[in-house]
Amino acid sequence: MTQDNAYKRTGVDIAAGTRATELMKAAVRATYTPEVLSETGSFGGLFAADSLKTMQAPVLVASTDGVGTKTMVAARMQQWDTIGQDLVNHCVNDILVQGARPLFFLDYVASSKLIPEQIAAVVAGCAEACKQVGCALLGGETAEMPGVYQPGEIDLVGTVVGVVDRFSLIDGSRIQPGDLIFALESTGLHTNGYSLARRVLESLKWHTPRDDLHGQSIGEALLNVHRCYLNDIESLRSAGMSIHGLAHITGGGVIDNLPRILPQGAGAVIQRESCPVPPIFRLIQQLGGVTDDEMYHVFNMGMGMLIVVPAAQAAQMQGAIQVGQIVEGTGGVELR
Amino acid sequence: MTQDNAYKRTGVDIAAGTRATELMKAAVRATYTPEVLSETGSFGGLFAADSLKTMQAPVLVASTDGVGTKTMVAARMQQWDTIGQDLVNHCVNDILVQGARPLFFLDYVASSKLIPEQIAAVVAGCAEACKQVGCALLGGETAEMPGVYQPGEIDLVGTVVGVVDRFSLIDGSRIQPGDLIFALESTGLHTNGYSLARRVLESLKWHTPRDDLHGQSIGEALLNVHRCYLNDIESLRSAGMSIHGLAHITGGGVIDNLPRILPQGAGAVIQRESCPVPPIFRLIQQLGGVTDDEMYHVFNMGMGMLIVVPAAQAAQMQGAIQVGQIVEGTGGVELR
Repeated sequence: MTQDNAYKRTGVDIAAGTRATELMKAAVRATYTPEVLSETGSFGGLFAADSLKTMQAPVLVASTDGVGTKTMVAARMQQWDTIGQDLVNHCVNDILVQGARPLFFLDYVASSKLIPEQIAAVVAGCAEACKQVGCALLGGETAEMPGVYQPGEIDLVGTVVGVVDRFSLIDGSRIQPGDLIFALESTGLHTNGYSLARRVLESLKWHTPRDDLHGQSIGEALLNVHRCYLNDIESLRSAGMSIHGLAHITGGGVIDNLPRILPQGAGAVIQRESCPVPPIFRLIQQLGGVTDDEMYHVFNMGMGMLIVVPAAQAAQMQGAIQVGQIVEGTGGVELR
Repeated sequence: MTQDNAYKRTGVDIAAGTRATELMKAAVRATYTPEVLSETGSFGGLFAADSLKTMQAPVLVASTDGVGTKTMVAARMQQWDTIGQDLVNHCVNDILVQGARPLFFLDYVASSKLIPEQIAAVVAGCAEACKQVGCALLGGETAEMPGVYQPGEIDLVGTVVGVVDRFSLIDGSRIQPGDLIFALESTGLHTNGYSLARRVLESLKWHTPRDDLHGQSIGEALLNVHRCYLNDIESLRSAGMSIHGLAHITGGGVIDNLPRILPQGAGAVIQRESCPVPPIFRLIQQLGGVTDDEMYHVFNMGMGMLIVVPAAQAAQMQGAIQVGQIVEGTGGVELR
């Protein structure tokens, strides 16, 4: 197509889309496991599922999510190579809490105007994180939607599909009063709470290193990559640990996410001072005048993944911090 | 949370998100096949894949897509119950071309401000289309992203996962010169070309019934639901038809999509007058002064799905229109 045809004038540049695809091909191909049968550009991605035939009762676990307005932080900092990692790690963690390991991932990137190099950096970030967990980046889509997106902004959405044997499913049903709650630390906001964080921090300098952020700038601290907990949890499981429940602390914080796995008759008590709070949260709370309760209802506050285990296993929980316990209750979380 | 807390003020309303989820629960549950093990609201959707164990060589086929700026047409018409159907049908068609039947689907809806009833209508549309093809609406996400989206606009993204036995995969490799190309008719634009269509039709009245649109208004004609071809193709296959290739005609039209399945040494000739062109395309072409070549490079022009079969099967292709043939060539499509 020529540069001045009718379609180009509407703001949709098919050639730019093709160029973006070319740019990201190598990164995407590097994630291909032997199961991937398709080439980039086919209608659907093909993943050979022969390994499922050897499982007793394979259960596919799937989750779709975005990175929220962390995209706006990436836009302000013009740093496009990390939000793809955020997205993959977020999705992988979301199915990990049910005991699943990821098989493949698909991404979607949209903006009002497609900048091939920018989209390619985002997708390369996805590919990087996929590679680290042996997950194939099986497909994706880029869309140019002038009039839907604000100029300069993007949205980034991902879907992960994983598998777990039905008898290894983690669903919280074995959680009981007396169990202990451990946390794996977060690296910062992960992918939640950015609307509040941005509002509070908006008028400050985002590129200046700050002592109260351990030398990071605000922009850097806000872009810290969402930590992936797959290897941590797999280590615990292969060490023979019995995990009663896992909660990925995303939007709604500990307050909303921990109850999602509590069985009837159980509640939880969390000691808020037990886990180091990354300094970015203190800065937001102080400048925004946000209450402690609300902070724990919006942000992970340093607890990225909660692990519920029988008390007898406390001594073996290397790398995790004891932050609370399961009590008799009605599904609520009490912060102390 | 109260109505005036810090998070609400930033434009993110967690309570509205919860209400949207409540509203769509019943519609989503109605899609649950016996394989669905999870409840709405769990971290990941669970789908029992025991049926894959009985297959010779199961291949999972996955595709992510959006409906493009058809969302802007829905916004202008304030009609939110059909674009979910568009999305599901689009995705189902995308994996159908490789021979796959859908297992489950996940949706993502985002906007600058979450209107629970609107999001619920969109997701109910997804659920309706899922139900019609026996596909579970296994999960989804809604996101409120003030500052990323234009006020009043939404984006809608879906991911479908299906399965096909490796030996039933359709990949175009059996296509050869002499094969015939049939089309299943489209219902209109389906989900592509809306940026161009909107620009051309923008200033007209969108609610007035028009004779040149068979009595539909422009808004209605633009919102015609993307047709799902699953049942048509399954009928042909169960009648013993040998299908050499399938091409879903999406962005890029026949010109870009048919070549995706042509093997080396093959080209295609399409008779453009062979298939009825829905009148909305004639209106766009006439008012926009768009060339015929570009029309076929942007829109499906009435051919929603192309089917390539051996010439001997021509007589049995009920419901499909012969539109062209495979010739010796280098992967190009010649329009005649």
